[in-house]
Amino acid sequence: MPAFVARLFFAAGTLAWATAQSAPEYTADGQLKLPSDYREWVFLSSGLGMTYQQGMERSPSFTNVFVNPAAHRSFVSNGKWPDKTMLVLEVRASSSKGSINKGGSYQSGVVAIEGEVKDSSKFPGSGWAFFGFGQSTTGKMFPRSEDCYACHAEHGAVDNTFVQFYPTLRHIAETKGTFKNGR
Amino acid sequence: MPAFVARLFFAAGTLAWATAQSAPEYTADGQLKLPSDYREWVFLSSGLGMTYQQGMERSPSFTNVFVNPAAHRSFVSNGKWPDKTMLVLEVRASSSKGSINKGGSYQSGVVAIEGEVKDSSKFPGSGWAFFGFGQSTTGKMFPRSEDCYACHAEHGAVDNTFVQFYPTLRHIAETKGTFKNGR
Repeated sequence: MPAFVARLFFAAGTLAWATAQSAPEYTADGQLKLPSDYREWVFLSSGLGMTYQQGMERSPSFTNVFVNPAAHRSFVSNGKWPDKTMLVLEVRASSSKGSINKGGSYQSGVVAIEGEVKDSSKFPGSGWAFFGFGQSTTGKMFPRSEDCYACHAEHGAVDNTFVQFYPTLRHIAETKGTFKNGR
Repeated sequence: MPAFVARLFFAAGTLAWATAQSAPEYTADGQLKLPSDYREWVFLSSGLGMTYQQGMERSPSFTNVFVNPAAHRSFVSNGKWPDKTMLVLEVRASSSKGSINKGGSYQSGVVAIEGEVKDSSKFPGSGWAFFGFGQSTTGKMFPRSEDCYACHAEHGAVDNTFVQFYPTLRHIAETKGTFKNGR
């Protein structure tokens, strides 16, 4: 193949890749940048008022979870998360009885955003780290002493992630044999 | 540019397009085919137990709404739906108190799927039609006498769709001036 054809093909391939691929990026002081297009990533699931403590939340929020498309494709293939996986947890307020709605709950404004990334060269050990964005576009890493680390390590059905609550991925992990029973 | 380079470029472009673009497809008897990759489309929102009648549902379901990426890109640009827009409404059962969850609701199995498409050459008038898939991969069109047609036409904040319940799109439509107050 002439070199310029290969170059052209590579350029087109890079373009397609750029729209579907993303890796975690950090500020100079180690904060995780919130990807501007995370709402176009693959949606995993949404919960309402989910809690790990007894008792229902008084003002329950929706929790939408998105994953970067490249990591999702990898998971669909083998039931595992590749390095550079990013999950975004978007917490939204719940509303009711607006417009023609008479009951139940729908989503309104963003309350907070959190992120979980697998970046082995940056986070030795499990490779995973958690970040809190609040309503900012950069997120500070939660200290290793926070409960989220131990809880995800112990109870995550697949590699520090709560696949037991993501119905499409749960099925894939069970089929691929990577699902451990979420305790 | 030599012809074979143009052909190569076109082929690569087609490939990228195919992963991001989709138009409604029908069976010979006019049923809408459920796109196999709709879960990788753009997520618009999720509700729980949403109803248009008084009183909360006894067994509330989650309702996830997805739109094809090409239509979403167009909406982001101008706050309107292009021809060949497809929205998929995925109804999922809600569960609670599984694994480490102690309260609130998370999503489990698919209960039913519905679709709404804008296909002007096929559906004269508004251009929109509604389909019920149940748990099948082909969906029968709802008759024009069904409530969904009149309700979406009257109450949809943007062109027969309930953008008033999709927080990211609502903001875009308000900014672009295409949002009519959902009554």
